[in-house]
Amino acid sequence: MRLYLASTSPARLATLRAAGVEPILLSPGVDEDAVAAAAGPLSGPELVALLARAKAEAVTGSVIDGSPIDGFILGGDSAFELDGELYGKPHFPEVAAERWRVQRGRTGLLHSGHWLIDHRGGAAAGAAGGVATANVTFADITDAEVDAYVATGEPLSVAGAFTIDSLGSAFISRVEGDPHAVVGLSVALLRELLLGFGVAWPSLWNRGGA
Amino acid sequence: MRLYLASTSPARLATLRAAGVEPILLSPGVDEDAVAAAAGPLSGPELVALLARAKAEAVTGSVIDGSPIDGFILGGDSAFELDGELYGKPHFPEVAAERWRVQRGRTGLLHSGHWLIDHRGGAAAGAAGGVATANVTFADITDAEVDAYVATGEPLSVAGAFTIDSLGSAFISRVEGDPHAVVGLSVALLRELLLGFGVAWPSLWNRGGA
Repeated sequence: MRLYLASTSPARLATLRAAGVEPILLSPGVDEDAVAAAAGPLSGPELVALLARAKAEAVTGSVIDGSPIDGFILGGDSAFELDGELYGKPHFPEVAAERWRVQRGRTGLLHSGHWLIDHRGGAAAGAAGGVATANVTFADITDAEVDAYVATGEPLSVAGAFTIDSLGSAFISRVEGDPHAVVGLSVALLRELLLGFGVAWPSLWNRGGA
Repeated sequence: MRLYLASTSPARLATLRAAGVEPILLSPGVDEDAVAAAAGPLSGPELVALLARAKAEAVTGSVIDGSPIDGFILGGDSAFELDGELYGKPHFPEVAAERWRVQRGRTGLLHSGHWLIDHRGGAAAGAAGGVATANVTFADITDAEVDAYVATGEPLSVAGAFTIDSLGSAFISRVEGDPHAVVGLSVALLRELLLGFGVAWPSLWNRGGA
């Protein structure tokens, strides 16, 4: 059973690989801002669900080596929420530093949306999705740590200005939920979605794990 | 600032590397069963604290390229607790399968002990420790999934018969606590212990993270 990942996120790919699944990568090329704007005001879970679905649906017509997709397509999207506001990638050092000065010592929500399309046999036959949300508590780091972390460049390109699986890991003190949802892909939720199509998770294993 | 890791656990090493720290590895060679037996009945947190300390103290006299250890020594140990019982590595397929048939759908505790010795300047000048405990909830996996997972061999050599960072990740639905404590080393706790010695975490960064 093959899995096609409709996402360019290195963290989602790394999560799948560590879990024993080497997916086929497809770049969805979705204008996320345009999709979100067209939908109007959405909650965090609604937004990531919508974008995960848009990404999965964007690649259904892909032709690979002359053949249509034969397997399951997974789309994913994540957003970080603090005090009811949604935050994406900070992009700029001063923005990342300001976010950390606000979020240190506090707890936010990381929402990860998933959309799975059953495209076995070369045509879409069904779909299912879900959102995994995890509470993330940040350590009360010092100004010097904020500056040092921002200087690495890592927080600039990740939603919420943090990672839990790389340099940011020392600055996350607690998670409540699926830790993989924090990285962008709840493997446990993906397993459940596949089970709904009668597909057992071990049938996706095609590599040895982490 | 150099960190010396008194542990042979590949998971602890991988966690530190992902967090941006390449430690110097030292094999503590501690007879864990003998240390535990000499101590008498212990709770899970007490046991992992004792063994973490024993591992760190076992390497303090190490000489590396003719020089004593100049930096901080970290010892670590982990145990899994379910229904008040402590579980180590199952070692045998039938034991691993039986544990999974019991623990699926339920929540256990993963205790990770840490002991940090300040050995800057070549001599022990102080020490501090702590235990990070995380609640781990297992998915209610099928008999076929239990058998497939055990057949990979992975659960045989890990405490509690599961990983959260490799093939087992699909079978863990929730964590409450530091997810890195589940892997065996709470990076956030290590940061706090170092801060107690006046050492800022970013001063340990000597590689680029995950």
